[in-house]
Amino acid sequence: MVVSTQSKRFASLELDCGVTLAPVDVAYQTYGTLNADRSNAILIMHAFSGDAHAAGVDEQTQQKGWWDSMIGPGRGFDTDQYFVICSNVLGGCRGTTGPGSINPATGEIFAMTFPVITIGDMVRLQAKLIESLGIEKLLSVAGGSMGGMQVLEWAARYPDRVASAIPIATTPRHSAQQIAFNEVGRQAIMADPDWSDGNYYGGKLPGRGLAVARMVGHITYMSDESMRQKFGRRQREDQGIFEVESYLRYRGSQFVDRFDANSYLYITKAMDLFDLAAGQQSLTAVLERSKTKFLVISFTSDWLYPSYQSQEVVSALRRRNQDVAYIELTSKYGHDAFLVEVEEQSEIVKGFLVRVTKGVNRR
Amino acid sequence: MVVSTQSKRFASLELDCGVTLAPVDVAYQTYGTLNADRSNAILIMHAFSGDAHAAGVDEQTQQKGWWDSMIGPGRGFDTDQYFVICSNVLGGCRGTTGPGSINPATGEIFAMTFPVITIGDMVRLQAKLIESLGIEKLLSVAGGSMGGMQVLEWAARYPDRVASAIPIATTPRHSAQQIAFNEVGRQAIMADPDWSDGNYYGGKLPGRGLAVARMVGHITYMSDESMRQKFGRRQREDQGIFEVESYLRYRGSQFVDRFDANSYLYITKAMDLFDLAAGQQSLTAVLERSKTKFLVISFTSDWLYPSYQSQEVVSALRRRNQDVAYIELTSKYGHDAFLVEVEEQSEIVKGFLVRVTKGVNRR
Repeated sequence: MVVSTQSKRFASLELDCGVTLAPVDVAYQTYGTLNADRSNAILIMHAFSGDAHAAGVDEQTQQKGWWDSMIGPGRGFDTDQYFVICSNVLGGCRGTTGPGSINPATGEIFAMTFPVITIGDMVRLQAKLIESLGIEKLLSVAGGSMGGMQVLEWAARYPDRVASAIPIATTPRHSAQQIAFNEVGRQAIMADPDWSDGNYYGGKLPGRGLAVARMVGHITYMSDESMRQKFGRRQREDQGIFEVESYLRYRGSQFVDRFDANSYLYITKAMDLFDLAAGQQSLTAVLERSKTKFLVISFTSDWLYPSYQSQEVVSALRRRNQDVAYIELTSKYGHDAFLVEVEEQSEIVKGFLVRVTKGVNRR
Repeated sequence: MVVSTQSKRFASLELDCGVTLAPVDVAYQTYGTLNADRSNAILIMHAFSGDAHAAGVDEQTQQKGWWDSMIGPGRGFDTDQYFVICSNVLGGCRGTTGPGSINPATGEIFAMTFPVITIGDMVRLQAKLIESLGIEKLLSVAGGSMGGMQVLEWAARYPDRVASAIPIATTPRHSAQQIAFNEVGRQAIMADPDWSDGNYYGGKLPGRGLAVARMVGHITYMSDESMRQKFGRRQREDQGIFEVESYLRYRGSQFVDRFDANSYLYITKAMDLFDLAAGQQSLTAVLERSKTKFLVISFTSDWLYPSYQSQEVVSALRRRNQDVAYIELTSKYGHDAFLVEVEEQSEIVKGFLVRVTKGVNRR
């Protein structure tokens, strides 16, 4: 499946902070075919550092998508049956408008003049994209980690426009610890003199700070056990360092080539600010209007987005007897599990989507 | 109890790496009185960023020692009964020879020409200090975290010179995850241009990098739950940031005033290299010559030094039917628990030391 990234431009997007971005570009990819009654569309939302290239082989880079094992013919999100869409988030650096984009008002790159964005803003932009594709109601919205936050936001904000929702390894709000890890990454970036208050475009990138930020991230994505199995205390004899050190340095430096430091700052802030129940009495109150069917998935060894956070969503839904299936999958892979534990996840998603499809067609 | 730091100079210390340091200074404090037969001495070992000032009020800084709640008249380490010693570790920056010291061979500061040091080197220097105080056998050696590694090293290397050992919240070797967190701290420091390959003395300190390193540390010292209780999602309205961010920034910047960045690099490396069973068949083989009585303590919510690491030591000792008591204390404070969970810890240590003292006097 060779795929390519497409782009749409929207006249404007009003943000939660009150600022209006105009225009706004969205980069997206689609897989499979939209059926005649436009009832088989599934929107996939990527995690923090992901992009629109979720599946297939990109015609330009020849690389596989970040969830290719889950999306394709016969896979969990079966492209023989469903029309799957994935877009780069607002604030990103892979084709959608973000701090590295030109501010049309000044003709210069936004950098740190880019307005503060929220998970809600990301979702409203996705809603514009879905409308523009002629889709009134999505069969499902799905994603892990920050993608899962967007799933929850979709279900809460557009309860009539999503037949089902699959939030994976996620949370209705960041804990102090999750905020703290993000803050370390931001401070590492801003401590790099090459960051230059965000005005590094066209010059030397804040690569050292961004690499350190990414190293912290990678530790939190794995589990104690998966790191032990992958690296243990093995040393690289050529460098006189532990393999885990070599791995982190490599992953850190590699990230600099593909991610914008200012997008790091804006997107992690959006995650920290996200609070599904903000301004409401409870999670139950937020979700009770929803007729959306939920499939909530978490993983035993995920200590960055621990199961108790998913279970809070499940409890809120069950309190109103809403349609929710919850599965805590056994995995040693930590938070990365949502990307790598494909086999069981695929079967569960597949079965769930069959059930949702039947429900939609019955109406 | 007003205390002051003393200093001793030793002619030389041969290191595991083959280099000989000559001379070597050791900063230390003592509390209580050495009895006539010199049988009531207890050596306390500090954690990564600690120093010799373990108890009492320092006559210069007016500050309390880092384990003041555990050491003093009537406390866990009762200075009415025991003579307690604590020294700054080799490689440190609080009076003991380290990378910030003058290299006598050149008349210049060592900086990164300081040799690689190990937990074993730290302990051999402590042994010199103990000998110089006329103490042949210690009633006990005790410490948490990196202090606990030194406790284990003492018990393994000098089985006849320690009647008892109290390793707390520690490990016989760092896991890949523990190495990874240390490596992030090191990379943050070395990414700071002010680090200047370690030659920053007398100039601008690598404060931004060191602060980021310390922020990561503080996250790992707390638990998800203790961070939630302490900070939650509360925001500082004056700064528009979360309280946990404000706290980490403060703690990071504060650390720069009291800790040397090169000491950070050398000491964390010593922790990573530590492997009590290195070159031996098993932990059991390392410890089986020991007649030392052990009290091993760990804490339920400590995810940086999880209980399973303490339990590995306990299992190794039990395999040879050695005298070991193990207690896993319930705490929400994470790794910090060894510093703050004073009440139960005091009682347990007190009772253990009474038992050890009886055993010593019976002989």
